[in-house]
Amino acid sequence: MFKKRDNIKEVEEGKYLEPKFDKNGLIPVITADFKSGDILMHAYMNDEALKKTIETKEAYYWSRSRKKIWHKGRISGFTQKVKEIRIDDDQDSIWLLVDIGDGASCHVGYRSCFYRSIPLGNIDNLKELEMDFKENKKVFDPKKVYKDEPNPTEL
Amino acid sequence: MFKKRDNIKEVEEGKYLEPKFDKNGLIPVITADFKSGDILMHAYMNDEALKKTIETKEAYYWSRSRKKIWHKGRISGFTQKVKEIRIDDDQDSIWLLVDIGDGASCHVGYRSCFYRSIPLGNIDNLKELEMDFKENKKVFDPKKVYKDEPNPTEL
Repeated sequence: MFKKRDNIKEVEEGKYLEPKFDKNGLIPVITADFKSGDILMHAYMNDEALKKTIETKEAYYWSRSRKKIWHKGRISGFTQKVKEIRIDDDQDSIWLLVDIGDGASCHVGYRSCFYRSIPLGNIDNLKELEMDFKENKKVFDPKKVYKDEPNPTEL
Repeated sequence: MFKKRDNIKEVEEGKYLEPKFDKNGLIPVITADFKSGDILMHAYMNDEALKKTIETKEAYYWSRSRKKIWHKGRISGFTQKVKEIRIDDDQDSIWLLVDIGDGASCHVGYRSCFYRSIPLGNIDNLKELEMDFKENKKVFDPKKVYKDEPNPTEL
């Protein structure tokens, strides 16, 4: 579907899109709020999801737990309007800048999935390290929105 | 080294750090400029790299190409001073906010690894899609800085 990777100089310095999908056919995606720059989530796309995202300007991912293409926001209503897509030097990861308005991107109900901060510095015991919550209020109640959908989080 | 993951509610809503490393022992890391919010790079840490990053407040990663712990900036001088570390809902990815001053994070010489933008909208042929360069000037010359170090980019 995409141009073949056959030259490292072309991959790094060229103008053609030659994404690298891993052995599971996936590329990692960093999704950020286009206004604040805050990271909203980290997910994966397969080739089809990347193509649909470029064409429709709405974010599609590959759900590793459900093993299928995932139109973000289909259930919650919080679709992501894509403002820009960047790719990195070796073309094996993607940075998606999106508009979610006043919505949320985290299935737990917060705006960003990254709502906890790890304290820095010398630590006696990593098992007792207490994180700070950086978001105090959920945007939505996941029980009401997702109803009987299974939780994608795995141990 | 870290607290055991034995309860999904604790992983998602708890205050304890219970990171999930994949079957290769790695967790993906998004590194952003703490001032602009721009993504600088996407990399991986193992447990030891995460511990060293928390303790030293400088970014350590796991180099998949060199298969060893990688103190970012050891060769180039562009170390990353860690201002904040966030972890996501299911604790399987990390967002690192760093200070690199006027430096760079990309081995190709640009400030950010994400120096190319993919055009959006209807496309006839994905193989002919031309990307835009968002950075026009390299911060450093990789040939001078890395000398005989092998290029980490793989096809």
